[in-house]
Amino acid sequence: MRTSIATVSLSGSLTEKLTAASRAGFDGVEIFENDLLASPLTPEEIRARCADLGLTIDLYQPMRDIEAVPADEFARNLRRARHKFELMRRLGADTVLVCSSVHPRAVDDDALASQQLGQLAALAEDFGIRIAYEALAWGRHVNTYDHAWRIVEAADHPALGTCLDSFHILSRTADPKDLEGIADIPGEKIFFLQLADAPLLAMDVLQWSRHYRCFPGQGGFDVAGLVRHVLHTGYDGPLSLEVFNDVFRQAEACPTAVDALRSLLVLQEEVGRTTPPAPVVPTGVAFAELVTPDAGPVSAVLGALGFTRTARHRSKPVDLWQQGEARILVNTQGSARRDGTGLAAIGLESPDPTGAAHRAEALLAPVLPRRRAPEDATLDAVAAPDGTELFFCATDRPELPNWRADFTDTRKAEQGTGHAERSTAVAEQGTRARGVTRIDHLALVQPWHHFDEATLFHHSVLGLHPQESVDVADPYGLMRSRAVTNADGSVRIALSVGAAPTDDTVHAQHIALATDDVVAAARRFRESGGRLLPIPANYYDDLAARYEFADGELETYRELGILYDRDAQGEFRHCYTVTVGRVFFELVQRDGYRGYGARNAPVRLAAQHIAQ
Amino acid sequence: MRTSIATVSLSGSLTEKLTAASRAGFDGVEIFENDLLASPLTPEEIRARCADLGLTIDLYQPMRDIEAVPADEFARNLRRARHKFELMRRLGADTVLVCSSVHPRAVDDDALASQQLGQLAALAEDFGIRIAYEALAWGRHVNTYDHAWRIVEAADHPALGTCLDSFHILSRTADPKDLEGIADIPGEKIFFLQLADAPLLAMDVLQWSRHYRCFPGQGGFDVAGLVRHVLHTGYDGPLSLEVFNDVFRQAEACPTAVDALRSLLVLQEEVGRTTPPAPVVPTGVAFAELVTPDAGPVSAVLGALGFTRTARHRSKPVDLWQQGEARILVNTQGSARRDGTGLAAIGLESPDPTGAAHRAEALLAPVLPRRRAPEDATLDAVAAPDGTELFFCATDRPELPNWRADFTDTRKAEQGTGHAERSTAVAEQGTRARGVTRIDHLALVQPWHHFDEATLFHHSVLGLHPQESVDVADPYGLMRSRAVTNADGSVRIALSVGAAPTDDTVHAQHIALATDDVVAAARRFRESGGRLLPIPANYYDDLAARYEFADGELETYRELGILYDRDAQGEFRHCYTVTVGRVFFELVQRDGYRGYGARNAPVRLAAQHIAQ
Repeated sequence: MRTSIATVSLSGSLTEKLTAASRAGFDGVEIFENDLLASPLTPEEIRARCADLGLTIDLYQPMRDIEAVPADEFARNLRRARHKFELMRRLGADTVLVCSSVHPRAVDDDALASQQLGQLAALAEDFGIRIAYEALAWGRHVNTYDHAWRIVEAADHPALGTCLDSFHILSRTADPKDLEGIADIPGEKIFFLQLADAPLLAMDVLQWSRHYRCFPGQGGFDVAGLVRHVLHTGYDGPLSLEVFNDVFRQAEACPTAVDALRSLLVLQEEVGRTTPPAPVVPTGVAFAELVTPDAGPVSAVLGALGFTRTARHRSKPVDLWQQGEARILVNTQGSARRDGTGLAAIGLESPDPTGAAHRAEALLAPVLPRRRAPEDATLDAVAAPDGTELFFCATDRPELPNWRADFTDTRKAEQGTGHAERSTAVAEQGTRARGVTRIDHLALVQPWHHFDEATLFHHSVLGLHPQESVDVADPYGLMRSRAVTNADGSVRIALSVGAAPTDDTVHAQHIALATDDVVAAARRFRESGGRLLPIPANYYDDLAARYEFADGELETYRELGILYDRDAQGEFRHCYTVTVGRVFFELVQRDGYRGYGARNAPVRLAAQHIAQ
Repeated sequence: MRTSIATVSLSGSLTEKLTAASRAGFDGVEIFENDLLASPLTPEEIRARCADLGLTIDLYQPMRDIEAVPADEFARNLRRARHKFELMRRLGADTVLVCSSVHPRAVDDDALASQQLGQLAALAEDFGIRIAYEALAWGRHVNTYDHAWRIVEAADHPALGTCLDSFHILSRTADPKDLEGIADIPGEKIFFLQLADAPLLAMDVLQWSRHYRCFPGQGGFDVAGLVRHVLHTGYDGPLSLEVFNDVFRQAEACPTAVDALRSLLVLQEEVGRTTPPAPVVPTGVAFAELVTPDAGPVSAVLGALGFTRTARHRSKPVDLWQQGEARILVNTQGSARRDGTGLAAIGLESPDPTGAAHRAEALLAPVLPRRRAPEDATLDAVAAPDGTELFFCATDRPELPNWRADFTDTRKAEQGTGHAERSTAVAEQGTRARGVTRIDHLALVQPWHHFDEATLFHHSVLGLHPQESVDVADPYGLMRSRAVTNADGSVRIALSVGAAPTDDTVHAQHIALATDDVVAAARRFRESGGRLLPIPANYYDDLAARYEFADGELETYRELGILYDRDAQGEFRHCYTVTVGRVFFELVQRDGYRGYGARNAPVRLAAQHIAQ
């Protein structure tokens, strides 16, 4: 199906918006009136620009407060309409949106509305223009799609049809039954379909609409359900996004346009109109890759955590540190370490790495070069919206290209010295007894303007399921956090975002390592010279008030800085290392517990501010 | 009355919050549980810190989900309470907030609630502690103040009273009648009074409460009306602010604390408990002062606008430019010009400059040194929250210290050369025929974190009336704008704020100059070499569609870049100069019109982005 986007959904000048829509791959645009008014380009120039960019102008919008008004008012409206139709002719746009009236003088008279809209359509027809009449959710008298359709139907003019808008419909009803009336509208009388999602907020619908709309799949509406109804009528116009969003207004237009088009690609798949490569849900974390200008501090922390340096990349300055199934790469390559120590890449175990990459590419994820050096294995990798590189891996499957093949085992190389064997033996003993078993989750701070995009990306591209979004109080502002996971929890990524675009002071990424015995792991870490994040004593007094613990248990937590939480599924014990660069580690012992210790996050964040 | 503030209202660590509250001048604090848990200070150290800072600990909060629960649950609650009472003893806090239960197992049984709260109070009494029971607006069974009071009354225990919270009460009702029940509560049984205001939003009350509360006078609630009812009962505890606000959480704590205390000072005045110096409403704009590293570009614009350089400061590099009643100072003093050309000070005509300054000082405005140099006139001046210096002036009143006396007339000095006389004559002729008559308004961009503070400041300190807040679409984000004015509109200040803390790219301050003939003024400006901001042609096509104009009128506007608007009171024509540093000028002709051309602001902002 053709895809379109309203210019109001993107940031910048009209030229910037058009360029972004074209680059992302949209077929057309809706030109929002204010964007045209503020542009130094003439309508003819805009038309030419769109043509150059391969964009059709699918809609000009909006005309407001046209119908069901007294005769003097309507005469002025026709005069105004004639001006706009002339403009549209210059612009080369043949459909105009007319929103149901909110005018104080508008009357509750469907017959008058029909008659006046018919007159308007007759005028439009002279210009070769069609009127798409839409019910605003807050229209004065007309605020439901079926009401708008009855008025259009009664007017019975070939140049008059209706426009359906998912926000205006779904903000008023969550009952699928209310959508059944769409089947009564002939597809050819649905002149346009505007799509937006929104988070489920209980608030004034006008404010909700003007500030909080988002792209389909980013909110709580069943946009696909609505689209199915509309397609069933035979509608063959574009799927067009019209999103008023305070954050997108500030965000760079190009990434937003890509995010927007991705939402329509996923939507078309959902309603069965396209069949992109199927999602290949990752089944585990193959590795996390840290980049650092100086391997020393990170290596010291990994060593104290019980990791052993087991291999080195054949052609690059990258070490593999391993413990149980947890693998961490430490990369000191020049180009990757400009920003200091950070989490740069994640290896995801994939049942079908190439299929996963094809899926990602089809959904507009930037594909990374498959082969970095002539001798390297061909690896499928894409970039997430925050720039993190995602590698689709097949560790321990010799039949597939394997990232592990690029690494030379340093234990073998050192064999015979005795030292490597001893340290391997210690590492393995540690793994069994009190060590790290695997990577539990990865926590990534998202660019402020792209949090909604990140959730949609991880859901649609990787097939991970978004969990509930939670607010977390940092001493210097509220953060939001939302995890995405696979079904068995073997892949968990916690996405978080600060209170404001400037808010990136202490919000580090982190790698959470699973252990069966966090007390033993924490103790060993400390004994090996590692520094745990100190947790205030008051926190433990509160734990004592909230829960009953076995003798000595709380004292141990207090001594080590272990935090505690529980949910209906089980208990959670966790502690943190101090931060190195922009990264820290967490040791977690989850005995059935499903969350991420959000209740403890404010204490952790405050402690990190103190530690800095 | 004693003033207090909940630590949750301020940003930062507990130590930072306490310091800010003390510096602002609060008498006490409510310690919010999470702030204590996250603090490395022991309860004894917090107690000592508060004592050092001259702060009492008026409330510890909150305890939740205590009452009307099954016996096993209540036993756990009592155990938890005992821990918290021990903590409070260490902390030296004698009142604890208990919020009405939201627990899923809580039952709708007032007798059980009374009985359990009575038991809790008996335990508290052993520790010398009082329980203040408060109805949350979203409490499961108890969500109104009178319901909470009935439960407290029935329990009839000396250590059990109620806590009234303006948000929880006023978010549920705007009907003053609903407050009459407060009179039924004996003052000594109101153990605590928490105050917050909030903008009038139609949204889920829990979200409203957690993110949008603000200080009294910054929202839409009649907080003073509620306080009057409470004081009438004989309540003599503190007025305590409890404000959950996403922006204040990020803002520097010290200015926020000052803003907070100011709101309580104004509130006490409003309810007749204090009589600070009365507001002295300004009656006009004496001058606007620009600072600049290079007087050239600004002087060129002023000259082209028809201003004449009429005087120079005796001891400082400051020129006075004048036209009609519009006076602009251009200051090239080194210390003031680091940030480039900007609007640094405003002179406000005041019926009583000293009284105005006393008012400002009483309401915590930073008072500026009255005399800058030995020979200067003593001027009363304070700093606004955005740093703008406000001078209270008495131009043309010889009996009072006069800023004008610091300036030496350069026209007199040049007399006899003929040049000055001629230019004065031209200036005066211009003033009459087609010139600037006075400063219409000043537009100041506010620091993102202090927009609410700015409104309260201008209202309470200067006695200006806030107008409706409007959203303005900049191409790169939504701005908010709100004007404050005196009754006759002779003082108008438009306060605006960008979409995000980082958003200060194009949002310049500006000086709007009134003229009786904007066409003539604009034409003269251009003929004198001034550059007007170009306005896109599409804007004029839209004007033609919206309004009917006399022959040639629209063409003139189009030629000069004049914008047009109208409201119920009259018409508005205005145009803009290009920006110099961070300042531009506007020429406005308002024929009865009361607004600021907000409808045209998106076009102007887009044009300014293009011009940059």
